[in-house]
Amino acid sequence: MGPHPAVAAIRLAVRRVLHDILTGHPAPPDPPHGRTPTPLVLVACSGGADSTALASALAFEAPKLGIRAGGVTVDHGLQPGSDLRAEEVVLRMRRLGLDPVEAVAVTVGREGGPEAAARDARYAALDDAAARHGATAVLLGHTRDDQAETVLLGLARGSGIRSLSGMAAVSGADGRYRRPFLSLDRQTARKACLVQSLPVWDDPHNADPAYTRSRLRHEGLPALEKALGRGVVQALARTAQLSRDDADALDTWARQAEASVRDATGVLECAKLYALPPAVRRRILRRAAIEAGAPAGSLFARHIEEVDRLITGWRGQKAINLPGRVVAQRQGGRLVIRQG
Amino acid sequence: MGPHPAVAAIRLAVRRVLHDILTGHPAPPDPPHGRTPTPLVLVACSGGADSTALASALAFEAPKLGIRAGGVTVDHGLQPGSDLRAEEVVLRMRRLGLDPVEAVAVTVGREGGPEAAARDARYAALDDAAARHGATAVLLGHTRDDQAETVLLGLARGSGIRSLSGMAAVSGADGRYRRPFLSLDRQTARKACLVQSLPVWDDPHNADPAYTRSRLRHEGLPALEKALGRGVVQALARTAQLSRDDADALDTWARQAEASVRDATGVLECAKLYALPPAVRRRILRRAAIEAGAPAGSLFARHIEEVDRLITGWRGQKAINLPGRVVAQRQGGRLVIRQG
Repeated sequence: MGPHPAVAAIRLAVRRVLHDILTGHPAPPDPPHGRTPTPLVLVACSGGADSTALASALAFEAPKLGIRAGGVTVDHGLQPGSDLRAEEVVLRMRRLGLDPVEAVAVTVGREGGPEAAARDARYAALDDAAARHGATAVLLGHTRDDQAETVLLGLARGSGIRSLSGMAAVSGADGRYRRPFLSLDRQTARKACLVQSLPVWDDPHNADPAYTRSRLRHEGLPALEKALGRGVVQALARTAQLSRDDADALDTWARQAEASVRDATGVLECAKLYALPPAVRRRILRRAAIEAGAPAGSLFARHIEEVDRLITGWRGQKAINLPGRVVAQRQGGRLVIRQG
Repeated sequence: MGPHPAVAAIRLAVRRVLHDILTGHPAPPDPPHGRTPTPLVLVACSGGADSTALASALAFEAPKLGIRAGGVTVDHGLQPGSDLRAEEVVLRMRRLGLDPVEAVAVTVGREGGPEAAARDARYAALDDAAARHGATAVLLGHTRDDQAETVLLGLARGSGIRSLSGMAAVSGADGRYRRPFLSLDRQTARKACLVQSLPVWDDPHNADPAYTRSRLRHEGLPALEKALGRGVVQALARTAQLSRDDADALDTWARQAEASVRDATGVLECAKLYALPPAVRRRILRRAAIEAGAPAGSLFARHIEEVDRLITGWRGQKAINLPGRVVAQRQGGRLVIRQG
């Protein structure tokens, strides 16, 4: 008798990603010292159901493919006793057969709000752990449900399709971060822990209505499902993938078109910009503003629209102030964007 | 003292669109019979607050610009007494000073569900009324709130950014349909009716939980606003605009790229398709399937993904059956899509 369907599903998802990692990083055909180094893959595990399921699947699949499997848990230090909890997660990972395993304590700042600050600290610690251990990849337990929430959070920003594209299956420097469960629902991960008798924790933040994501999970998405039908999570995840491909293609186009709209001295020419489709033109304007020093995170769609009106609705407007002391102004047939 | 801010807002929105209509359809400089025909603009009015506000603003603004203003109300015949109601709407439009005004009775079919069938019958009647009266444009009362709902309905389909782009400000043959209130919130339209003492009806469908849009309006969107904050409707409307521009640009790209990926006999070449960005390639595949006879409305993202795997993941797959008896198969280095 094979494993429970939920366990089979999490293992298949991990096996596919491990195959992909091996194909992307083939062993050297003629190893310098006569032996091939064994690749190491780490799992980032919070002790919650999703990442515990991921850790169990990695521990099962990696040895069969000649891959070493290790684990890291990050202690955010945000609740009393979080250090003890992290040590317990280390024990659990060790019991699954992962090696090396470690807990890393981080200090969470305040920049960008509590969720963003915790995320920044977490990824910095994971980057560091991957480098120290020489890991080829770090697996993250985000599920299709997390992806759906991320798309809705992006939708609430109203800043276009890039923010609808959610989390990538492969991201980070050298494609280090992998999300094997991005097409898998949360319920399957839970079930896989249950039938394998793996103890899991619920992150208290997940139920805290002070967090936007938590409100979305417990109130927003269920109400949306009630109105629109049960397929909403899947539809949001598919929207993420389609939006990502579309955003990538338009970025490519904008990059290629950019050279053709600059004059010999590199200044943007209004007539040539005008001839481009609005979607491409606004991406070029956005790139130019960032290149001039505007911080990407503070540059909103309304800023770019205002600059765009210097091209499409010219009636002698004044110079436009952008974040980061960047100024955009039309001078004759040229658009000059620079730090003021 | 000027008008109430809500009345000022609806009038400004209509004035902008009328200006735009005049600019788009300038009077002939040397009229053949010595006099310029006065353009006619119709409003589609259900008797609800949005379209009643629109009718009042059109009646106020049109004469100042030398435009004739008329109105049409469509009797869908779905409730007992709907004919009397339509006659009442005609009276109200006449009282606003609109001329010509008329009620048109339609028969709503069943195709595509009750909402789609009612919409199809309505637009056919409006098209017909515009042609009979020689109208330059037909104004529709859709607000920013309607737009937000349309974006969420598109999101639930999960079929990509075109379905996120909501309703266009200008649509239909010759850009006949105009939506002046697409950036205006529903509350402003309601307020404008109230302060002008205009009687309005609430469409019973708007509160009927059997309709997806109604559930979205009364449960889905409020829950989303509670989770994500008050700016959700605006963010959704902005997403619509950005998605529309992006989808237009990618369609243009796909149209241009299509010629370059066909061989001398017009058959698609796999190697050339492979070299394109996925977003552009999938649009070409979709266009090719529709051209071969697949009905656009039955062609889903998963169909196109399966055809795409003939290009990107070729391992000798069988021919793929698409809606409308269309078959896609790889033959050597060629992709053949035709009705089987």
